[in-house]
Amino acid sequence: MIGIDWGTSSLRAYLLDPDGRVLERRVSSEGILSAAGRFGAVLDGLISGWPAEPVLMSGMIGSRQGWAEAPYVACPAGAGALAAQLRRVTTAGPRGVHIVPGLAMLDGEGIPDVMRGEETQVLGALAALGRSSGRIVLPGTHSKWVSVADGCITGFSTYMTGEVFAALKGHTILGRTMDGEEIDEGGFARGVEQARGDCGPPGRLLHRIFSTRTLGLFERLAPREAAGYLSGLLVGAEIVAATPLPDEGGSSAGVGSGIVVVANSALAALYADAAGRLGLSAEVAPADCVTAGHGVIARAARLVA
Amino acid sequence: MIGIDWGTSSLRAYLLDPDGRVLERRVSSEGILSAAGRFGAVLDGLISGWPAEPVLMSGMIGSRQGWAEAPYVACPAGAGALAAQLRRVTTAGPRGVHIVPGLAMLDGEGIPDVMRGEETQVLGALAALGRSSGRIVLPGTHSKWVSVADGCITGFSTYMTGEVFAALKGHTILGRTMDGEEIDEGGFARGVEQARGDCGPPGRLLHRIFSTRTLGLFERLAPREAAGYLSGLLVGAEIVAATPLPDEGGSSAGVGSGIVVVANSALAALYADAAGRLGLSAEVAPADCVTAGHGVIARAARLVA
Repeated sequence: MIGIDWGTSSLRAYLLDPDGRVLERRVSSEGILSAAGRFGAVLDGLISGWPAEPVLMSGMIGSRQGWAEAPYVACPAGAGALAAQLRRVTTAGPRGVHIVPGLAMLDGEGIPDVMRGEETQVLGALAALGRSSGRIVLPGTHSKWVSVADGCITGFSTYMTGEVFAALKGHTILGRTMDGEEIDEGGFARGVEQARGDCGPPGRLLHRIFSTRTLGLFERLAPREAAGYLSGLLVGAEIVAATPLPDEGGSSAGVGSGIVVVANSALAALYADAAGRLGLSAEVAPADCVTAGHGVIARAARLVA
Repeated sequence: MIGIDWGTSSLRAYLLDPDGRVLERRVSSEGILSAAGRFGAVLDGLISGWPAEPVLMSGMIGSRQGWAEAPYVACPAGAGALAAQLRRVTTAGPRGVHIVPGLAMLDGEGIPDVMRGEETQVLGALAALGRSSGRIVLPGTHSKWVSVADGCITGFSTYMTGEVFAALKGHTILGRTMDGEEIDEGGFARGVEQARGDCGPPGRLLHRIFSTRTLGLFERLAPREAAGYLSGLLVGAEIVAATPLPDEGGSSAGVGSGIVVVANSALAALYADAAGRLGLSAEVAPADCVTAGHGVIARAARLVA
């Protein structure tokens, strides 16, 4: 079979053997924004020469702005519920092409949250690690924190950490005194430690980020450390909010005090480092584990044996 | 005397009678950024024909980027401590020109916070209202929450609410679905109510703001309401964080459950509305109350009788 992870700004295709091993991997920068209106042609071009079907696609390709909308499935949901709601699309070629739906849920206050693509990565990460339960974080522009019990995604929460960091760095006074493009390790560590001690309600974050400026003003934070510090403040605040820390009231039922991180190696290392400073063990999922998710869903849908 | 409020992007000059009443008011867009390098000429031009001295200036004019740096005075501080640290500058003309220093403090975790200009507005607001104690908010790009007891500024805290709102609206996915430049009243009210119910640590704000997107996605928030909703979320979160709400553990000692708002009328109305929804009474300080602060500090410095 062929597994496709098609996001807003990138496209990854994997040729898989019957056991789900990756035989070949092809990457394109034609995310759904640039491929709009010619999805079939872009797909056929990328996977040309690959004889296999079915093709199972996950990610923003199933959004309103994608190839065809695959409506959100209500969470809790596992591979079976996702498989039951695949959206089939027709292409010029003879292949059977299907889109995995996203997940939606309401939090305790009736506010919706959504994911699209991460559900497949989460199921794949746990399958790759040989587990059926856990707490998984997919850090990034919009970090997702996902709880899974017995193969069923039971709840999740989105944190806009990456996008907020970029907006603060690029478009507020905090970025004006930053020097260098790298995330300084020492600055990052200081930010995470600061976030550990922070208390107060959510609005306190609007105050705490100002310390990036004031510490610099009193020469207690160097310009080359400032971006790392702000990143550490935000990532630390995210982790503290998303996990009951071991020293703050115990761990989630059945999940233990560990998390699984699904991200590229640099970002995964950053989150694993922050989690460790906050007393959580972090395991990094193997690269390309999304393919194991494609396999799990394809089997649940009986697209493959 | 002459009182000057000289900020980053604006300059206001007031000719005051011996009782502190405003005889004449002149406004310029020559903030310290545009007036850099010719502060004396800009000042002389704006107040030409006004015979009075002394001239007392407050605001960013005393910062490192201003005319002359007036180092921060340590908080707690009242008019006496500010008056003792005025920075005198020399001009081409015969006038005695002085700059009010800003205030700095360390919070419970040793993180600095600073203000410059607001100390004069705060003392002026309370003088104009005939009080010597209170909790004052100066909302804006960087909102300041200030506690005053017996004429002494005892503590303060900065919230980057206005600047964070602009960065999120202008440079994240949240702004992409917003329609209209106005802050919709209904949307603002919904955001404030949402903030009231929010619990969890500071990082929770990174999650909550995403509701601006998801409520829109499910057509529970109209594009014309979205900017107001996000503004209400942030302003509400700020107020909840900055004040012990009456229903969340009582009021600050000696301050009661009311706040004084110092801002232009539109912004003051927005904050007074949000405070009311959160169970706090809000009083709006008179316009141009900064001049009463100039008077208090000038008398403490014996520049006037």
